[in-house]
Amino acid sequence: MRQRDLLTTTLRETSADAETINHQLLLRAGYIRQLAAGIYTYLPLGRRVLRKIEEIVRKEMDAAGAQEILMPSMQPTELWKESERYDVYGQELMKLQDRHKREFVLGPTHEEVVTTLVRGEISSYKRLPVTLYQIQTKFRDERRPRSGLLRGREFLMKDAYSFDTDWEGLDDSYVKMFSAYQRIFARCGLDYRAVHADSGAIGGEGGSHEFMALSDIGEDTIAVCSHCDYAANLEQAEVRTHAADANSDLLEIPTYEKFHTPDTIDELVKGLNILPEHIIKTLIYADEGQLFAVLVRGDHEVNEIKLGQFLGTSDLALADYQTVQDVTGVEIGFVGPTELLLPLYVDTAVAAMSQGVSGAGEKDYHLRNVVPGRDFSLERIGDFRNAVEGDSCPSCGEGVLHLHKGIEIGHVFKLGRRYSDKLGASFLDAAGNKKSIIMGCYGIGISRLMAAVAEQNYDEEGLVWPASLAPYAVHILLMSVKDKEQVALAEALYKQLTQLGVQTLLDDRDERAGVKFKDSGLIGIPVSLIVGKDAAMQKVQYMSRLTNTKEVLDISEAIMRITTS
Amino acid sequence: MRQRDLLTTTLRETSADAETINHQLLLRAGYIRQLAAGIYTYLPLGRRVLRKIEEIVRKEMDAAGAQEILMPSMQPTELWKESERYDVYGQELMKLQDRHKREFVLGPTHEEVVTTLVRGEISSYKRLPVTLYQIQTKFRDERRPRSGLLRGREFLMKDAYSFDTDWEGLDDSYVKMFSAYQRIFARCGLDYRAVHADSGAIGGEGGSHEFMALSDIGEDTIAVCSHCDYAANLEQAEVRTHAADANSDLLEIPTYEKFHTPDTIDELVKGLNILPEHIIKTLIYADEGQLFAVLVRGDHEVNEIKLGQFLGTSDLALADYQTVQDVTGVEIGFVGPTELLLPLYVDTAVAAMSQGVSGAGEKDYHLRNVVPGRDFSLERIGDFRNAVEGDSCPSCGEGVLHLHKGIEIGHVFKLGRRYSDKLGASFLDAAGNKKSIIMGCYGIGISRLMAAVAEQNYDEEGLVWPASLAPYAVHILLMSVKDKEQVALAEALYKQLTQLGVQTLLDDRDERAGVKFKDSGLIGIPVSLIVGKDAAMQKVQYMSRLTNTKEVLDISEAIMRITTS
Repeated sequence: MRQRDLLTTTLRETSADAETINHQLLLRAGYIRQLAAGIYTYLPLGRRVLRKIEEIVRKEMDAAGAQEILMPSMQPTELWKESERYDVYGQELMKLQDRHKREFVLGPTHEEVVTTLVRGEISSYKRLPVTLYQIQTKFRDERRPRSGLLRGREFLMKDAYSFDTDWEGLDDSYVKMFSAYQRIFARCGLDYRAVHADSGAIGGEGGSHEFMALSDIGEDTIAVCSHCDYAANLEQAEVRTHAADANSDLLEIPTYEKFHTPDTIDELVKGLNILPEHIIKTLIYADEGQLFAVLVRGDHEVNEIKLGQFLGTSDLALADYQTVQDVTGVEIGFVGPTELLLPLYVDTAVAAMSQGVSGAGEKDYHLRNVVPGRDFSLERIGDFRNAVEGDSCPSCGEGVLHLHKGIEIGHVFKLGRRYSDKLGASFLDAAGNKKSIIMGCYGIGISRLMAAVAEQNYDEEGLVWPASLAPYAVHILLMSVKDKEQVALAEALYKQLTQLGVQTLLDDRDERAGVKFKDSGLIGIPVSLIVGKDAAMQKVQYMSRLTNTKEVLDISEAIMRITTS
Repeated sequence: MRQRDLLTTTLRETSADAETINHQLLLRAGYIRQLAAGIYTYLPLGRRVLRKIEEIVRKEMDAAGAQEILMPSMQPTELWKESERYDVYGQELMKLQDRHKREFVLGPTHEEVVTTLVRGEISSYKRLPVTLYQIQTKFRDERRPRSGLLRGREFLMKDAYSFDTDWEGLDDSYVKMFSAYQRIFARCGLDYRAVHADSGAIGGEGGSHEFMALSDIGEDTIAVCSHCDYAANLEQAEVRTHAADANSDLLEIPTYEKFHTPDTIDELVKGLNILPEHIIKTLIYADEGQLFAVLVRGDHEVNEIKLGQFLGTSDLALADYQTVQDVTGVEIGFVGPTELLLPLYVDTAVAAMSQGVSGAGEKDYHLRNVVPGRDFSLERIGDFRNAVEGDSCPSCGEGVLHLHKGIEIGHVFKLGRRYSDKLGASFLDAAGNKKSIIMGCYGIGISRLMAAVAEQNYDEEGLVWPASLAPYAVHILLMSVKDKEQVALAEALYKQLTQLGVQTLLDDRDERAGVKFKDSGLIGIPVSLIVGKDAAMQKVQYMSRLTNTKEVLDISEAIMRITTS
């Protein structure tokens, strides 16, 4: 492609709306343009990157035995009511009526449509398993679209759905998709982790994993082991009990004693030189009217998902100020475990303390020398807190956990019978019994992935695409269109590389060298060939953005390096 | 692909809704399924055909220098109001509101979006010309969706837009797209014609061509020359005057005479043995209140588009019954030209008659021996009729015109400044003057093309895909999955062909041979290899659907034939 002809205007200024690097650079380098909030046009460079991602995804899906289909965006609203998701999605569903006042939604996902499709096509176990996928535009009416392609209202997705006769079959289908996802993200050059996750609005009875691209702008926090491949959403990350911390010398610690603390806990920490990890926090929770206390260390936070799982409830919440006052007789800040008449749920890290500082159950007073097990009950111990930086890995035990922010780029779910039951997708087994099909679903945000890769791959000049996704493999920069030798060499190189099948962009614009370097830096093609003053000697400068190196090479050597790399 | 795993259910019954062959066969062979009126899912076989069309279109667009982009489906309604098309499209626009009550349309076409895009990117003549295209789902709220993919509400289109500095540039861009379209339709194996066309709702100042796949179920009528490549929509097809028919012996015909005709014109024709081509029909038209008569032969029909072009008006209509009565004093059926006090517009075919039968201007009477030029004025002669079967070709003069029905599969328009003026897309020319960009637009219905190819390529067994679009190149039919030699040979063939890059479908289902032949006949893969009783001798039956031939071949020869064809 000749850059003279390319519909790409690079921008020197950063748009005020663009808060994230990927959004700024994709706009500035001429990959995308906004049409409306969360709705983008892909310019030629952006479309090329998108197509490369599509092709990687398509190849890996096909290799995993999935079959490509294409389902409509317009879905009859009745289907969403049948599956009982119409209200769950609520305002995020884009809705419309046709001229006959029939109601449709624009699909944000296709469980309803695909389940109805398979219900009509498959009736016997002989036709199972099957996995279907599509690459398609999706719609979601985000309340606050942001970060460019990361959270848009119209976006490109790959969604896949597996159909099996039983849970073992689903496990196989799930593993196949999981492995395909690993290959896809690796081929896209992403630094990512697969984490155990919650199923959210998609629902389902089985497990679920999220694939997270590590990035400071991510909306999720994940805990990642420094040693093994363990990774989990913060809500799901287990905390390992440190046997070493366990309390073994109870008797030597004197009886707890009250001291005056009219200030807040923060001032207390500062004023008395008490470290947060020496404080025992007492929080009062309510679960359908039943009150109980949870104890965590001062530097830890209660993980309500873990607590709920331990208690077998999803309905717990912190008790309000008045309730705490009524039950304990003091303000929240001075509640302590020693004389509390409520069940105590003690986090393992508290249980492992030899002694600590807690509220005294009396206004303006705390206690010191509070010993877990001696001064309050350790009947109910569990993992009730969020993991923190430096916790040891619950999987290998050797590494420590580091917390990262992550961008969700893929999600795999074991749906089970969630949709096949509701929509009546069943099959006859070998014995002639009617059973519900066991489903899984698997999504990748294609356009979001483009943003995540951009967010992970840039330098001070602009984007730096991995070779697998770069819009072109080589960028020839013709320094002066007025120098005949340079023109001849650049044209010859362009022709030769193109004939060799190398996707090449030739900057043949009548612009100053500085402009060309700036634009090339922004666009981020991994290899540049600079045709300048050495052209007369049939030499070019070979520049790699990935390794940040420059070399003057004979053109034959430059071509050799490109075609063999 | 193993057919055992393929999500395809062939249907023995034809759906009652499916009135056209393509719709019936695409449903029965398992290519598509309806989700709602005019809204379809593409099953794996259908998706493969669609992808092949997409790839042909993409390659030819790229080769023609067009750049691929991707614009959103959701378009702000304001854009359509700015271009003054919101009301023109009316109920055919799918409309929606987002959660903030902002209004959008789902794009049936993208002139507004692309013009706005280019307005933002291009400001100088140096950056022109440029042609952009996309392959994308479109939405149109058809009042009556029908014929399966031919007239759907959600469908796949390739739309392209060219931007030039002047009309000569547009002519070049137009020719490039026109040629690309010819290559695309030829590669898809279509019998089609490019015809001069009217611009319709897209509007624009320049010319326009439609690409029509010839088919009895087409909604348009086109006139096609038997000798040269002339083709035109019926409304546009010129009629050549036949000098040979011209009247030269006026004087020998006796004065016209009245005869009693109390019956309708049809009964008159039958009873008196008068041929329709001997009748002169007199029709009264009104153009903004001005009345005039048009004379055409009894076997011809007035072409109001030609008439309007001759008169320089687009507002003419047949006068109503009462007006005719008031002006002529008789009922419509008995109006004649001989004593009429209105301007007479005489079609060339009437002018060329030596004599004819016309209304007498008196109830229940007609005239015979009416001689054009003697008995009524030939001051205003023109081509005012539709072409008919057998008219001589207006282009070469050697062939005759045949009328065909056509399915519109592509349309190219010279838009000129229609959109750039309204939406303010301008550029500075070399002298620094601001000018509107000159645009063209170019569409191909990708999913409609699939239906048109199906409509042209079938036999009594089912679909017969051209090799370029077939979902697979070869269909191996394993006659008995219980015969070890057959299984071994079929598997070996499948493996070898797949390794050679031949897209192969292996029917390895545990079904009777009859079922396999029936399904294979429906699915329509061009070449089948039947692995049956000759398997032990390493022989297969090679069956071509295109040539309708069968031969027993050694497997090496069968493979050779496949890979070299």
